Amino acid sequence: MTDLHARLAAIVGAANLLTDPHDLAPAVTDMRGRYTGLPLAMALPASRDEVTALVTLCAAEGIAIVPQGGNTSTCGAATPDTSGRQLIIGLRRMQRVRHIDAANLSITVDAGCTLAQVQQAAASVGRLFPLSLASEGSCQIGGNLSTNAGGLAVLRYGTMRELTLGLEVVLPDGTLLDALSALRKDTTGLDVKQLFIGAEGQLGLITGATLKLFALPTAYSTALLAVDSAEAAIAALNALQARFGDRLTTFEMISEPCQRISERHKPGCMPFFAPWALLVELSDGGEPAALQASFEQWLGGQDFHDGVLAQSETERASLWQLREDISDMQKREGPSIKHDIGVPSSAIPAFLASCGAALDAAFPGVRIVAFGHAGDGNLHYNISYTRPGNAELFTDEDAVNAIVYEHVYRYRGTLAAEHGIGQLKAHWLSQYKDPVALAIMRGIKQQLDPHSIMNPGRWL
Amino acid sequence: MTDLHARLAAIVGAANLLTDPHDLAPAVTDMRGRYTGLPLAMALPASRDEVTALVTLCAAEGIAIVPQGGNTSTCGAATPDTSGRQLIIGLRRMQRVRHIDAANLSITVDAGCTLAQVQQAAASVGRLFPLSLASEGSCQIGGNLSTNAGGLAVLRYGTMRELTLGLEVVLPDGTLLDALSALRKDTTGLDVKQLFIGAEGQLGLITGATLKLFALPTAYSTALLAVDSAEAAIAALNALQARFGDRLTTFEMISEPCQRISERHKPGCMPFFAPWALLVELSDGGEPAALQASFEQWLGGQDFHDGVLAQSETERASLWQLREDISDMQKREGPSIKHDIGVPSSAIPAFLASCGAALDAAFPGVRIVAFGHAGDGNLHYNISYTRPGNAELFTDEDAVNAIVYEHVYRYRGTLAAEHGIGQLKAHWLSQYKDPVALAIMRGIKQQLDPHSIMNPGRWL
Repeated sequence: MTDLHARLAAIVGAANLLTDPHDLAPAVTDMRGRYTGLPLAMALPASRDEVTALVTLCAAEGIAIVPQGGNTSTCGAATPDTSGRQLIIGLRRMQRVRHIDAANLSITVDAGCTLAQVQQAAASVGRLFPLSLASEGSCQIGGNLSTNAGGLAVLRYGTMRELTLGLEVVLPDGTLLDALSALRKDTTGLDVKQLFIGAEGQLGLITGATLKLFALPTAYSTALLAVDSAEAAIAALNALQARFGDRLTTFEMISEPCQRISERHKPGCMPFFAPWALLVELSDGGEPAALQASFEQWLGGQDFHDGVLAQSETERASLWQLREDISDMQKREGPSIKHDIGVPSSAIPAFLASCGAALDAAFPGVRIVAFGHAGDGNLHYNISYTRPGNAELFTDEDAVNAIVYEHVYRYRGTLAAEHGIGQLKAHWLSQYKDPVALAIMRGIKQQLDPHSIMNPGRWL
Repeated sequence: MTDLHARLAAIVGAANLLTDPHDLAPAVTDMRGRYTGLPLAMALPASRDEVTALVTLCAAEGIAIVPQGGNTSTCGAATPDTSGRQLIIGLRRMQRVRHIDAANLSITVDAGCTLAQVQQAAASVGRLFPLSLASEGSCQIGGNLSTNAGGLAVLRYGTMRELTLGLEVVLPDGTLLDALSALRKDTTGLDVKQLFIGAEGQLGLITGATLKLFALPTAYSTALLAVDSAEAAIAALNALQARFGDRLTTFEMISEPCQRISERHKPGCMPFFAPWALLVELSDGGEPAALQASFEQWLGGQDFHDGVLAQSETERASLWQLREDISDMQKREGPSIKHDIGVPSSAIPAFLASCGAALDAAFPGVRIVAFGHAGDGNLHYNISYTRPGNAELFTDEDAVNAIVYEHVYRYRGTLAAEHGIGQLKAHWLSQYKDPVALAIMRGIKQQLDPHSIMNPGRWL
């Protein structure tokens, strides 16, 4: 153990400074297995003060820090490099719910709380924390903040940015920024907390947050509806918004190739096949029967050629299971080139048509497996076949990406709607992002972290 | 005309460079008549390119710029100093609705559009732009963005920050930042547009914005309800949120002194008197009768000792008139020391009790006229009497403010919930705002505007 290790251990306790490769293993490789690093160590602080002490020491010694939450980044945003000189700081010992203010609809938590813990704490006082995504059992609030996480309920409740009222951040020089606040309105100067949301740990280490809560719905009504085209899907979205406003909490589009894959691996799971299946959920206070009756009445006036309206909690769960199984089912089909893209919802039909045609021209018979949160324009647009035998799938990745991103930006979209940039997409960012915006970002990095202590080697 | 005037006129046309004191008069004094400046001139550009040219010229010549929208700041944020060396740039010739995307629920406008113009443009395609405030006929979108405006519907739809998808900004060196976007989800780097929202024109001049729209409600149900205490008001707020979710779009509290003033100046306007009157509005898609029936049913299960549920559009309008008249009625009573404070909604009762007691101890018989957007914790808390004869009202302002703000910050509130800081509250900001946050703000100012061209002499 070096002197530096001893000083780090003095802050968190020897048991909470991991150096053994076996102990470090879960933290050094990213979730998708693309990146593996070799850290100096991993420190597990138990408090904001311990984080402050760690960052202050690292700043003095020029040791770079990689903040890590649940290690569920899909872009390698929380994996250290292989220099053996970077310290991972893991937040899993900081999982305290500090305060719930049910009447103000707010909750203050340590950044190491998992998303599921926050959801449960809110539910325990009859409130909803609405962020919802596949890894909610293991991803942590600090990571959700650092990627500005999205997920299944953005249409109604917004992304993590819109769910955040206040933040507590240890800055790269060890200074504590206490911007915790439970206010909905505050015009006292710049809203500095915005800088750290979506910054992927490059500007500071988030140790706590105050988040918005909502009334806990008492009624749900959930349907899987068949439409013939993406145009019809967007028309249905607009009609649902006009009739139900924000009671429309979920609007997911599932393409036919996606439906067929699910059916192949879980026979009988699909109640129908259609060019697009829409998973639609309404939620509300009040009596469940009243909401169900309104939805039924509305559906009666529409022209869906097929559809299922869940009549029980079991049926509702099985519709959701369909959606949640999609990623797993696709994995069983073999590898794919994945995209986390977004365009304005209104542009989804045109994007799908023109990008699909361009891909098919370049790779005849290309297989596109698309699904996603179409209510907010975010599609997971995966390519699982490019050439007979498919051996060259990943050889074709650059060519496929170039076509996809060209079409995304033609519709003023984004190449990273909810997964962030991390290591995986940094080179794309410099190619597609407005250089004026990039220059502002780099200036802020220079201001807050001139010695590049915080999560270096990413995109700032 | 100086050479500089000639060069400015060459950009916007001589007719659009105002130098005559008569032409300048509406722009040099703020709405409340507290500040009067003497500008070099006022330029009225017609396009983003003209703004860019103006800013580039000013940057080269070291001429400070005061961006001005509808000149409705209550804090003197858009009034030039008296040096005769500052150029006002007014946006009233930039009032183009650039694009409405009804299916994506978004609108892109020039920053000089009035709020009412944007509301109307949205309504013309069956959509709602929900920001709503007293000066909506004259305030401009650029000003709404620069103060992160709030108003009557924040409870449901959020402040201007949450309503903004993209911005176009001319930076202090004349560079154009094109951060226009109609995306709800985008994790490609820092969200640089956030810097300019609430910056009061100190970091750049906003020339355009893409804003969120919502489905246009087809049903409203509006009531004025009597409660005996602030505690009962907050309990009613929570109960309404639990039952109606975001159909609750307005929740305003009006104190009894406020009710009495209105009745004195408009006899018969108050249907009842109570410690607090609550103006509550629900809105929804679907049939108006269905919403009214739900609200009636809910009210039937509650214990309000008095109340009026509007039975027609006329009755609804008269309830809203009550709320909208409050500021005018108070003006007729004479001057008052005004506060635009916010605390967590749950802390409103404790704040009112403890701050009221402290003021009464310092100024026996003090008259507090409170009302506001209690659903988001924002109160307009005005003191209209401090001592017999009341001649010393403004002499007492510092002492009153010190008491009020001490209590506001005891409850982790804000001294500027929705009106901003401007010139009026700059000294309070340095006293009450966290110094770490202030240092970050000043660093950003230094980065973006090192020569202090943009709206100098405010709080950055």
